[in-house]
Amino acid sequence: MKNQNSAIGLFDSGIGGLSVLKQFVRFLPSERFVYLGDTARVPYGNKSTQTVIEYSKQCARFLINQDVKLIVIACNTASAIALNVVQDMVDVPVIGMINPAAKAALQATQNSKIGVIGTRATIESKAYQNEIFEISANDSVEVFSKACPLFVPLVEEGMLRHEVTKIIAEEYLGEFQAHGIDSLVLGCTHYPLLKQLISEVLPNVNLIDSGEHAAVKAIRMLAETGLLADEQEKLSVQPQIDFFVTDVPTTFYEVANIFLGFQVSKPIKANLE
Amino acid sequence: MKNQNSAIGLFDSGIGGLSVLKQFVRFLPSERFVYLGDTARVPYGNKSTQTVIEYSKQCARFLINQDVKLIVIACNTASAIALNVVQDMVDVPVIGMINPAAKAALQATQNSKIGVIGTRATIESKAYQNEIFEISANDSVEVFSKACPLFVPLVEEGMLRHEVTKIIAEEYLGEFQAHGIDSLVLGCTHYPLLKQLISEVLPNVNLIDSGEHAAVKAIRMLAETGLLADEQEKLSVQPQIDFFVTDVPTTFYEVANIFLGFQVSKPIKANLE
Repeated sequence: MKNQNSAIGLFDSGIGGLSVLKQFVRFLPSERFVYLGDTARVPYGNKSTQTVIEYSKQCARFLINQDVKLIVIACNTASAIALNVVQDMVDVPVIGMINPAAKAALQATQNSKIGVIGTRATIESKAYQNEIFEISANDSVEVFSKACPLFVPLVEEGMLRHEVTKIIAEEYLGEFQAHGIDSLVLGCTHYPLLKQLISEVLPNVNLIDSGEHAAVKAIRMLAETGLLADEQEKLSVQPQIDFFVTDVPTTFYEVANIFLGFQVSKPIKANLE
Repeated sequence: MKNQNSAIGLFDSGIGGLSVLKQFVRFLPSERFVYLGDTARVPYGNKSTQTVIEYSKQCARFLINQDVKLIVIACNTASAIALNVVQDMVDVPVIGMINPAAKAALQATQNSKIGVIGTRATIESKAYQNEIFEISANDSVEVFSKACPLFVPLVEEGMLRHEVTKIIAEEYLGEFQAHGIDSLVLGCTHYPLLKQLISEVLPNVNLIDSGEHAAVKAIRMLAETGLLADEQEKLSVQPQIDFFVTDVPTTFYEVANIFLGFQVSKPIKANLE
């Protein structure tokens, strides 16, 4: 039986989901976390639906074996494709990236013009667009989407404020100004690291960070079922996180530090099959 | 008896608390809100302790008469001085600005060097500093404080990205670089509007927005007591907010729009005494 002290489990195809973990740590500092990055098979975006479902099930099973009380699919591709399958498979709540961000975008927009950026796979899946239309009470909402493939490698190289990244951002995002959007879904786990730069290119646009809204959803779900960890009386600085990966990439520590802003402990090799 | 459909009440000495309301609307879009700005007597920062307590009690009583299920003291001065008095006076939970931000700063810092900025009154009260030391498990935490008096009028003039504001920010915040802080509490309701600019001056510093963390605390408290409003199936764009003020300032609509990012409905004149 899960209890308050069980961990929250997050999985991603790689290390991008650490931006989601960061938001969970920020808003739920008293929780324990288990993070699984399927780094041996990253990325999921170019794999078939059947394969993404299979990999996601393996990740979820691994987290269930860690006795987690909640599963967060901290990966846009897996959220778009495998959320329902994972929900049907496990007996703990499952939160994906799409719904919380779609809701937040609809809540944030004043002019009903929403932008969505993501990897090519996410944009082609139309997952955000479909979800926004599905949950909107307003028929006149417009969604403009754009794949921003270079953002992932630029973030992983740590070029968060580099002039090249600014030039690329201006090229990718310029059309949103013409469309007059007032809210933009950062539909890839890497993009929240570019918030500052994206705000410079689109200064009056609400940037929607899926991880942040997924964390808020988690607080609500856990509190309503009595499964939130008690708040600590005295706050210690280091969050409690177990890192598992299916492969230890050569740049793991540098990239993890870029995403989380703190040094991570040695990841443990996980075998999913 | 309060129920899920009761409103969340917020009060502030003026309109600065709208930055707190904005965070509540962002994370709790299905709730109803009552906002009270004591604009006839703003600011509280230069008034005596006894007077701030008296005004805060009047504001809280007004919100209780609106049948709110939670009171948020969306004012740093009133939070620092009157939180306990208001908590003892009412039978609903009360959230202030100090504790959630102090917690968030302790959680965010990696090097145990935290900055706090606020009005002169807030900085002189040492409210954040005392709270941080009180709840820290780490004796070596250092807190550096700085009053930034010009930020309030610059924000109210809408000069959020103006070069003058940048120059002032560089003057105020330069010393934090020398101290090597990695986290900064925005200890005044106006300052979250300067996040972008402050990030440019202090690029690798976590900016702690009290309103954001107060909203997260509210979700937890309401969910644990079964008082969160049900999430809407279909999202409508306009949040449900009743605005009350003790005086309608000439620039109310412009300033409210700067804080919230949307047009507000006509405020209702409240009589507190």
